[in-house]
Amino acid sequence: MLPEINRINALIVGASQGIGLGFVRALLQQDNLQKIYATYRSKQTARDLLALEQQHRDRLECLQVDITDESQIAAAAHKIQESKQLHLAIYCVGVLHEENLSPEKSLRQINAENLIYSFQVNSIGAVLLAKHLMPLFNKSDRSIFACISAKVGSIGDNRLGGWYGYRASKAALNMLLKTTAIEYSRRCPKTIVVALHPGTTDTRLSRPFQKNVPPGKLFPVEHTVELLSKVIAGLSIKDSGEFFSWDGSQLPW
Amino acid sequence: MLPEINRINALIVGASQGIGLGFVRALLQQDNLQKIYATYRSKQTARDLLALEQQHRDRLECLQVDITDESQIAAAAHKIQESKQLHLAIYCVGVLHEENLSPEKSLRQINAENLIYSFQVNSIGAVLLAKHLMPLFNKSDRSIFACISAKVGSIGDNRLGGWYGYRASKAALNMLLKTTAIEYSRRCPKTIVVALHPGTTDTRLSRPFQKNVPPGKLFPVEHTVELLSKVIAGLSIKDSGEFFSWDGSQLPW
Repeated sequence: MLPEINRINALIVGASQGIGLGFVRALLQQDNLQKIYATYRSKQTARDLLALEQQHRDRLECLQVDITDESQIAAAAHKIQESKQLHLAIYCVGVLHEENLSPEKSLRQINAENLIYSFQVNSIGAVLLAKHLMPLFNKSDRSIFACISAKVGSIGDNRLGGWYGYRASKAALNMLLKTTAIEYSRRCPKTIVVALHPGTTDTRLSRPFQKNVPPGKLFPVEHTVELLSKVIAGLSIKDSGEFFSWDGSQLPW
Repeated sequence: MLPEINRINALIVGASQGIGLGFVRALLQQDNLQKIYATYRSKQTARDLLALEQQHRDRLECLQVDITDESQIAAAAHKIQESKQLHLAIYCVGVLHEENLSPEKSLRQINAENLIYSFQVNSIGAVLLAKHLMPLFNKSDRSIFACISAKVGSIGDNRLGGWYGYRASKAALNMLLKTTAIEYSRRCPKTIVVALHPGTTDTRLSRPFQKNVPPGKLFPVEHTVELLSKVIAGLSIKDSGEFFSWDGSQLPW
């Protein structure tokens, strides 16, 4: 998925588990990777990532970042900027359920605090990242800023209803990325900004909902990462500001 | 704009100024209006509305509601429910700028607190209202739940960039309304849910940005209310969950 140049630097935000960790593993296999930064929120849930760092001390550096705290995003960007320019950044943070948060089946389950939290994690963190990474993207080569969005965040594709907070926060993410793509096209015109739909992937996020997934449609993490890597590899500047599915097709807003 | 039946009850949320107050004035002219409830946040900025209440004590009742506080929305719904069923509710609350909030020209101006506040006012308040009004809508006649959205909240139509918080919160509003329309179609199937783009209207919200509006495109409040009333009057159940401009055309998500 990396641009076809030597000595590439990448950043994966939300890399402790799931798709984020899958991207870290895949990138470490690539010969032209110089350095990968990987962020995690909590040490307790980042054991696999931190073990990987022990094995790849020369190429993998982990940074603790809570993306609901802008100062932590700024500090991570500052740390990267000290020595590197970025060619690839992927925002893999997302919340669908947590201890006191479940996707709403009905308006009756709507709760303002949970909606705010969904916007903080699924939408605002991504645009704060876009803000602080803008000076870091490589200016001479094609670079990528990708965020994991979701097809249920497509307003036009919404036929089933429910999942108010998740849907609205992913629609908001899509708008923030479209707006970022317009600004990036002026300030770092080689950087392509996209929203990606990973398909239903076998991660902690989808676990409570996997029983409704048709056979063959629940992707192992490695498969999702392979598919999205192919999509990323095929992107050109005219794709910036768009929303792509795992099969490379464009999704409606 | 009212359904063609006698003894209609309406609710305008955010009625102290601008388009909301315009709707109150227009509704008071309609013979088949039985009762209109109008909410305002602060007495200081609601003088015109409160004066109108003095003149129309029999048909206009004002309620103080801060839509960032769910308990106040619930209390207003409870008050209406005591005696009335609703045929029309319009959410006219919206924030684009305030003392410490200006629409962002660049990512550099992005601020998490302002984004959260934009989501609270422009998106979350509307879906909290949809939650608490669901039991109040009239079950036997065509009813309307409309929210003032904005064309700059269309992701597909975004070509200029900027205004991150306003754009994202209106896109989120659109998703919340689409999702509400699906749920309403099951639970109160006579109620049509729509997002409306009012055009640039001469209100406090647009005031700092009016100098860029082409001649003839800055609508007086009365004109906007007339146009939107015509759109509302023409709605049928197949329009529920869609996004309409002041001229009745459908907008892309």
